Amino acid sequence: MREIYADHAATTFPRPPEVVENMVHYLRDIGCSPGRGAYHKSLAAARMVYEARGLLARLLAVPEPEQIIFTPNVTTSLNLVFKGLLAEGDHVLISSMEHNAVVRPLSRLAREKNVLLEQLACAPDGTLDLLKLRRALRPNTRLVVLTHASNVTGTILPVYEAGEMLAGTDTFFCVDAAQTAGTEVVDFAALQCDYLAFTGHKGLLGPPGIGGLCISRRAATVTRPLIEGGTGSRSEDEYQPDFLPDKFESGTQNMPGIAGLAAGVRLISDTGLAVICKERTTLMESLLSGLAEINGLTIHGTKEAAKSVYTVSINMAGVDCSDLSFMLDQAYGIQTRAGLHCAPLAHKTIGTFPQGTVRFSLGYQNTADDVAAIIAALREISAF
Amino acid sequence: MREIYADHAATTFPRPPEVVENMVHYLRDIGCSPGRGAYHKSLAAARMVYEARGLLARLLAVPEPEQIIFTPNVTTSLNLVFKGLLAEGDHVLISSMEHNAVVRPLSRLAREKNVLLEQLACAPDGTLDLLKLRRALRPNTRLVVLTHASNVTGTILPVYEAGEMLAGTDTFFCVDAAQTAGTEVVDFAALQCDYLAFTGHKGLLGPPGIGGLCISRRAATVTRPLIEGGTGSRSEDEYQPDFLPDKFESGTQNMPGIAGLAAGVRLISDTGLAVICKERTTLMESLLSGLAEINGLTIHGTKEAAKSVYTVSINMAGVDCSDLSFMLDQAYGIQTRAGLHCAPLAHKTIGTFPQGTVRFSLGYQNTADDVAAIIAALREISAF
Repeated sequence: MREIYADHAATTFPRPPEVVENMVHYLRDIGCSPGRGAYHKSLAAARMVYEARGLLARLLAVPEPEQIIFTPNVTTSLNLVFKGLLAEGDHVLISSMEHNAVVRPLSRLAREKNVLLEQLACAPDGTLDLLKLRRALRPNTRLVVLTHASNVTGTILPVYEAGEMLAGTDTFFCVDAAQTAGTEVVDFAALQCDYLAFTGHKGLLGPPGIGGLCISRRAATVTRPLIEGGTGSRSEDEYQPDFLPDKFESGTQNMPGIAGLAAGVRLISDTGLAVICKERTTLMESLLSGLAEINGLTIHGTKEAAKSVYTVSINMAGVDCSDLSFMLDQAYGIQTRAGLHCAPLAHKTIGTFPQGTVRFSLGYQNTADDVAAIIAALREISAF
Repeated sequence: MREIYADHAATTFPRPPEVVENMVHYLRDIGCSPGRGAYHKSLAAARMVYEARGLLARLLAVPEPEQIIFTPNVTTSLNLVFKGLLAEGDHVLISSMEHNAVVRPLSRLAREKNVLLEQLACAPDGTLDLLKLRRALRPNTRLVVLTHASNVTGTILPVYEAGEMLAGTDTFFCVDAAQTAGTEVVDFAALQCDYLAFTGHKGLLGPPGIGGLCISRRAATVTRPLIEGGTGSRSEDEYQPDFLPDKFESGTQNMPGIAGLAAGVRLISDTGLAVICKERTTLMESLLSGLAEINGLTIHGTKEAAKSVYTVSINMAGVDCSDLSFMLDQAYGIQTRAGLHCAPLAHKTIGTFPQGTVRFSLGYQNTADDVAAIIAALREISAF
C-alpha cells in the first residue's frame, strides 16, 4: 500500500535528502562546537552556524543575523518571550486560536504571577476581526501574541495588519510562525514585530530539535534570558553576556540540527516562496473542493485556499475522529492526526471541543495524486 | 599530518558510526514525533524514545525510566533545577570548581531573587574537603550543587559521600555529570541525589543538542517546569500535566538526537563501564607521568589518574596558553582548548585566572600512540 503522509503540521516527512546529508556531513567531517576551541574543526563549526543564521535572516527578512536565536523548538522560543518579558500586572492579549505552547505558559503566569491574560475571540472559521484587537488594547497591554496560522484549521490570521496597528506603541508583538515559516511569506521586517518564533522541522524542512526566535533590538534589550550558562564568550564573567545572540544562547547547541535546518532553508530559498505558495494554493484548492463534495463531512476553517495554509480539519457525521484517522491509516495508508492537536482553545473556538477533528496537513512532498487518494478514501468511508 | 583530537571534554569526536547510523535511520525510516499521531511511524517514534529512556535508566541506575527528562543540554537541565526549585531567601551551596552553567544562572538568581549563593572553597588541585560542606550547611540550605568532575582539571569530587551526608535531610542535592556520564560510574541511586544533570555529546558519545536530567520523586513534585507547552498528553488542559516525564518535556523533541544518544549509550553498556574506566586510567597514567617529565610544565589537578577523569590542564613557563594551543594544532595536529573553559571560578581556585590553561581531554577514541605524540610535541616545544 502506498503511504500518504498528511501530518506535515506535526512534522515534515520525508525530509529532503540534502537535509539528512548535511547533518551527516556535520557529524562526520566537523563534529565539534563553535567557540569552544581555536582548532580548524571548531572554526568550521562556527562558520556553519554563521551561515545558517545568514540563510534564515535572508529568508525571514531579519535585519541582522545575530537577531536570530537558535532554540530547540518553537515552544522554547515562546517560553523565552513570555518569561523573559512579562512582569506582575502586565496585560497580555492572545487570539482564541493559539496552541498550548502559548496557552500553557501564559496560564501559569496568569495563575502565579498575576499576569492578566485575555483572549480575542476568533470566528468559528478561525479568522480574527482586528477591531477586537484595537478595542482590547489597554495602557498596560505589554504583549500581543498571534499565531500566523492555526495548526488546527490552517486559517491565516491578520498578523501584518496587527503589526501595523501596534507599530510605534509600547506594546510588544509576538508572532508564532510554527505553521508558516517555509510555506508562507514570513517577513520579520514587514510584520514590525518584536518576536517571531519559528520551528525548523515543519515548513523549513529541517529535523526535529531545532527552532528559533527572531528578536527586535528593543526586545533584546529588555528580555531576560530563559537559560544562562557557558557561551564560549566572556568566559571570565560570572554573569551572562548582554549581546546578541549570546545573551540567549547558552550551552552546546544542536549542531546537527542547525546543519539540517540550513539545508532546508537553502532549498526553500532556491525554490522561492512564491513558487511554494502557488503550489500550496493549487493543492489546497483541489483538496477543499473535493472535501466539499463528500456527504456528511464538516469542514472547519475558511474553506478558502488563499486564506489558509496547508492544513484543514474535518469531521465525518457518525464517525469518531480517532476511528476515522485509524481507518485512513490502516485501510488507505493515509497518515493524519486526530484529536485536539494540543490546541483546546482553537477547538473551543471552532466548536469541536472536546471531541476534536481529523486534521489533514500537506507539505511540499504531497502531490495531486495524494489529494485524489484522500478524497477517494473519504468518499468510500462516508458511503459505508 | 595525523590529527589527534584531545578536546573530548568539549564534545566527543569522532562519534562512533553506530551513532550517526541510528540518527540517519530515524531521519529516513521513522521521521515523525511520538504522541502526535496514531499511525505506525508515530508509534515507532514513541517506541524509540521509550527505549532510549530505558537504556539511560539502566546505565545511570535510575529506578524508573520516566524519571529521566530529555533536555537539549546539561545547561538547560541545570537551569531547570535552579529556576524550578529555588525561591527567595534559599541558601545554595556550590563548589568552587563549578562551570558557568551552574554559576551564571545562580548568580542571576542571587542578584534578582535574593537567593543566597555560597561557594565551598576547593583546594588548588580541585579536590573538596567534605568537612567544608558539613560546616556550611544551614537550616535554610535548599540545594547543594557539585560537579562530579571538573571540566578544567578532571578532578573528581566526593559526590557519593556528599549524597550520603545529605540523605534524609531537607536539602536537595544536584550532581552535574557533564564530564562523567559515560566515562565514570554515575549511579543515580547510590548518589542519593535529587537531580543528576547530564549531556549526551561527551562521554555518552551522542550528538550535540541532546542531554537530560534524572530527577527524584520528591524533586519532581516540588520542581516547577522551565518550559510549558504541548506534550501530546491531556491536550484538553490549558495547564501543564503534572506527571513524569511530560511535566518537564514540552514541544517537539530532538528525535535524531535521542536516536544518536541511544546508540551511544548502548555501545557503552555493551563495552561495560569497568572496561572504560580501566582504559581511561591506563591512558591518563601514561599522560600524567609523561607530562611530569617535561621541564617548565605546571600540571593542574590531582596528578593522579585514579582521582580524575579524562582531563588535565597545563601551563608551560613563558608560553601563553593560546599560543601553545595554536602551536599544538598547527605544527602537530593536536587539538586542545586554551583559556578559561567557561569556568572562571575553577581557574580562580587552581590559580590560573585570568590567563587560563591548555586543557587536554581524552576520550575512548584516543590511544597510547596519541599520548606519546602529545608528550613528544610538548617536549619539543618546551626545548625551544
